[in-house]
Amino acid sequence: MWGIDPLWHEKDEDGNDHVIDWVGFWRYPATRQMNNGSINFDGETLLPQGLYMQFDITGRDKSQWKFLGVLYGDEYYTSIDEFRSAWQSSDFQKYTPNMGEKWIETDRTGKKLDFDEEVPPMSVQPGGQRFKVDEENKYVEWMDFTFYLTFTRDTGMRLYDIKYKGQRIIYELGLQEAVAHYAGNDPVQSGTSYMDTYYGFGPYAFSQVPGYDMPLYAYCMNTSFHASELSKSHRCGISIFESDLNHPIQRHSTQSYVSVTKGIALTVRSISTVGNYDYNFDYNFYMDGTIETVVRASGYIQSAYYAKNDEYGYHIHDGLSGSMHDHALTFKADFDILGTNNTLVKHVIEAVEKEYKWHKGPRNTMHMYRKEVATEDEGKMNWSANGQEQVIVVNKDAPNKYGEPRGYKIMPSRGGAGMHLTITNSSNLLNSAGFATHAYYVSKYKDSELRASSAWNDYDTANPLVNFDKFFDGENLLQEDLVFWFNLGMHHVPHTGDLPNTVFSTAQAGMVLTPHNYLLGDPSRQTSQQIRIDYDEGEVSDVYTFDSQQAFGEIDLSQVTWDPYTYAGDVAVRKFPYDPQNPFEDTESIV
Amino acid sequence: MWGIDPLWHEKDEDGNDHVIDWVGFWRYPATRQMNNGSINFDGETLLPQGLYMQFDITGRDKSQWKFLGVLYGDEYYTSIDEFRSAWQSSDFQKYTPNMGEKWIETDRTGKKLDFDEEVPPMSVQPGGQRFKVDEENKYVEWMDFTFYLTFTRDTGMRLYDIKYKGQRIIYELGLQEAVAHYAGNDPVQSGTSYMDTYYGFGPYAFSQVPGYDMPLYAYCMNTSFHASELSKSHRCGISIFESDLNHPIQRHSTQSYVSVTKGIALTVRSISTVGNYDYNFDYNFYMDGTIETVVRASGYIQSAYYAKNDEYGYHIHDGLSGSMHDHALTFKADFDILGTNNTLVKHVIEAVEKEYKWHKGPRNTMHMYRKEVATEDEGKMNWSANGQEQVIVVNKDAPNKYGEPRGYKIMPSRGGAGMHLTITNSSNLLNSAGFATHAYYVSKYKDSELRASSAWNDYDTANPLVNFDKFFDGENLLQEDLVFWFNLGMHHVPHTGDLPNTVFSTAQAGMVLTPHNYLLGDPSRQTSQQIRIDYDEGEVSDVYTFDSQQAFGEIDLSQVTWDPYTYAGDVAVRKFPYDPQNPFEDTESIV
Repeated sequence: MWGIDPLWHEKDEDGNDHVIDWVGFWRYPATRQMNNGSINFDGETLLPQGLYMQFDITGRDKSQWKFLGVLYGDEYYTSIDEFRSAWQSSDFQKYTPNMGEKWIETDRTGKKLDFDEEVPPMSVQPGGQRFKVDEENKYVEWMDFTFYLTFTRDTGMRLYDIKYKGQRIIYELGLQEAVAHYAGNDPVQSGTSYMDTYYGFGPYAFSQVPGYDMPLYAYCMNTSFHASELSKSHRCGISIFESDLNHPIQRHSTQSYVSVTKGIALTVRSISTVGNYDYNFDYNFYMDGTIETVVRASGYIQSAYYAKNDEYGYHIHDGLSGSMHDHALTFKADFDILGTNNTLVKHVIEAVEKEYKWHKGPRNTMHMYRKEVATEDEGKMNWSANGQEQVIVVNKDAPNKYGEPRGYKIMPSRGGAGMHLTITNSSNLLNSAGFATHAYYVSKYKDSELRASSAWNDYDTANPLVNFDKFFDGENLLQEDLVFWFNLGMHHVPHTGDLPNTVFSTAQAGMVLTPHNYLLGDPSRQTSQQIRIDYDEGEVSDVYTFDSQQAFGEIDLSQVTWDPYTYAGDVAVRKFPYDPQNPFEDTESIV
Repeated sequence: MWGIDPLWHEKDEDGNDHVIDWVGFWRYPATRQMNNGSINFDGETLLPQGLYMQFDITGRDKSQWKFLGVLYGDEYYTSIDEFRSAWQSSDFQKYTPNMGEKWIETDRTGKKLDFDEEVPPMSVQPGGQRFKVDEENKYVEWMDFTFYLTFTRDTGMRLYDIKYKGQRIIYELGLQEAVAHYAGNDPVQSGTSYMDTYYGFGPYAFSQVPGYDMPLYAYCMNTSFHASELSKSHRCGISIFESDLNHPIQRHSTQSYVSVTKGIALTVRSISTVGNYDYNFDYNFYMDGTIETVVRASGYIQSAYYAKNDEYGYHIHDGLSGSMHDHALTFKADFDILGTNNTLVKHVIEAVEKEYKWHKGPRNTMHMYRKEVATEDEGKMNWSANGQEQVIVVNKDAPNKYGEPRGYKIMPSRGGAGMHLTITNSSNLLNSAGFATHAYYVSKYKDSELRASSAWNDYDTANPLVNFDKFFDGENLLQEDLVFWFNLGMHHVPHTGDLPNTVFSTAQAGMVLTPHNYLLGDPSRQTSQQIRIDYDEGEVSDVYTFDSQQAFGEIDLSQVTWDPYTYAGDVAVRKFPYDPQNPFEDTESIV
């Protein structure tokens, strides 16, 4: 049994509050005997049985709790007896149940593909590690970037004090909340709007698998979190690695030379499995000063029963509907561009008709104008059509030598950047979804507005501990300490390709923060990892590699190859099944 | 001297046509003495001098051509004498010229970065090549994908007959046109709207640099194109390689096991340098059946003179404006989903207020509805706000066993997917920009509507050889042979970080075509490149690697390391300087 989240608070005729729960019945996957043992694949969220029960669970005295009704096939019954007699009648329509067979298994299946078993290309690190980690202080230095890593129960990994070339760019960058808002013709899907910090990203940041979740040579950092009066740890909750993007960052060919610079990035990764879903969080750093936040989703979908649910999802298996839902993952970027006096500006490109001294009659062309977000009354924003607004955080008092304000631009990089909830005024989330109603937000920093959400908002969404909407109370935003909040998301209507697991290929979103008139040129010109080849008439005359060492000789994979039998299996903390009395009982401490 | 493109056609009082040209003066970069020789960096497009001249170049008889005027500092002079005397007057305002100094050079410069000279991570291929190429037929087979590659003067590389699991998905996928539309207060920037197929992508698909443009182990395919009565070839105009994305495609952690699948992709890459700009075109194939089209831009920007140009770009160097411009790269995807009878459908997610049997009073939730694009009158489309429309090509007559139509979904994957021209009714492009006014289009296939544009449209944009708008003449689109056209683009207002070259980090756009209820499950489950680790209480009990070979032992880099002195420098075809009498004189044939 697993039910709505958050629970509903409803008033009766006398104005008394009641806490209402709806639970659905899910089938637990059968044990499968495999070659070497047995396994229960984790596909229970693919096995709804279409039976729902409603309870009044007001108060702490269980004896006062009440059964209220049953739902099956979109028919509501007010007693078990009523439902039982309906079920036993000859004209009762029984729907197809969902059974946990081979289709829920993630193992290799089907026709073998040509060459597939052969070793595929892989990333190696022929030289040494080219970044420094101060494990004690969780402090990372890579090229001209430095930052600190933190890790908490609620939100998992966050980055602090991100400096570029010795100047702070961002005081804090990290996840705030992750809403998964479902809809459906049954109360459990309709009533499900997970705010995942309630469960926490920290406890579920399972150990990453070398060679699969991250390159074999990645630096593994253990993570610690504090919950239920105890400090706990994960092995390899964070991986840090450089990689070659397999495309250059810069290139130019000419008739006499070609110049190409390798695309090398540093990635800081954490993966949390909150119940059925596996969230991969990446922070990527690039040689041009760009910082990218990426989130990807895999794992099992939470599905719905198919009966009369056509309006809310695709029919994807015998008795299964894909259960449409929105993911909105809200991030905070507390900018400090050359100090804390910052302004959010929009440099807008628009079509115009213009007259010029050098032309008879008007011309249809375009120009750019600049506007500022002056107060928090304008602080909730969506992307412009056709991406014609550039969104930039600048310090107006710090122009460069040409008079342009130095800043960082915020722009979508992958998939669902800026995607927010479809539902307006959600009956589930009430006053707790203010951070998920727009693509992005800007507010004035306050010590009392540190997080967009709270893990405890889930208990009473009408009266949340943190009400993000209240951050927007008209304060001045010109040359103030600004906090930028943005959503990464997906509108997910699972189709057959989400079975057995959603794949990262299309379930991802990314946002970049990138220098904008910030330096006087492109800083990737500092790298030695480039080549210039001069040629003439098909003959190379000169090659410049700028003192970069070249990889020669042999790479001994035995030094990096990893024995999966050393995987520690991490700590067995799960969202399902969840024991609120002892949520972290199985968590081991490794520090 | 380099001027407007396309040339303007203007009528005089008598109704006679005149061809008008405006040229600007650019400085040719000085020769720089380097350690091993000398070089002229290719930065002339960073060196506008702010002087423009206007000519009437009507007809083929040069003796009839006329000088019309001079522009400098936004003042128009109708004769050279008038301009000369103004220049010599004491109160004439002379602006800062742009000089080609060190700032236009792409070589390594500035402070050396810690560890930067050491060998960075790289991709290697410890096993054999896991795909087949039939070089004679330009036919590629990778896993369950097969396709043909073609290469032409106008558009460079295109893909044909893309089959997945033996069924054609796309008959043709490739570039149609690439518009770069500038704006400015001077006639040369205002009058520049390159349609790059005029110059052609084929002639400029320079040889890729191993280890920088592509992994060292990439398969290199020579390319041929026919132009000016001759067949010519490029060495390594196309590279084909597999790589590990360094993130999985699927994963799920549980209390008793973890399942992770490697993210392996096949990339087909071509890079064309059309004058100042280097365009990287990638087609990526993924194990879940997804096909991605990516374009990235690097190289030198075409800049503007700064005098009185504030409205059209940033001031980025002494006498330099970044010259705002839009890139719109139009692609064709000629879908054949289970045959040629296809329909473009939109599955739209929207907020609704709903009543349910199991709840008192209405609830704020969402649902999905389906609509079809019935005729070409509805065939020009933009993205919906908040991405709430799913855009899918289906064969309505081929539902899957659950009654859902099988199809492929089109969705943005990176940066500027769907970005189109800001300018409406461009005074430069007139009737030749129909393919760049919307995010995407759908039309009925016709033998007479093969290309969205033509290389010859540039000669007379009012009367183009191919007028894309005319494709949309109200024809039925339900269960017809459909062609989907989409734009990848960038609104580019170059800032200081574009000096000396634009970098790929933010100048990229991508679109995916991805299975949607097409198969009955996720086909990446077929791969052996996954692991399942079973554990209990921190001890691994079993490891499954599904017959995938593991990389052990040593990788001999000497087998793949590449000697840059073997780079053939390719053929010296350039857009600048351009000799229309003999555009490909330096092109060698290597076949």
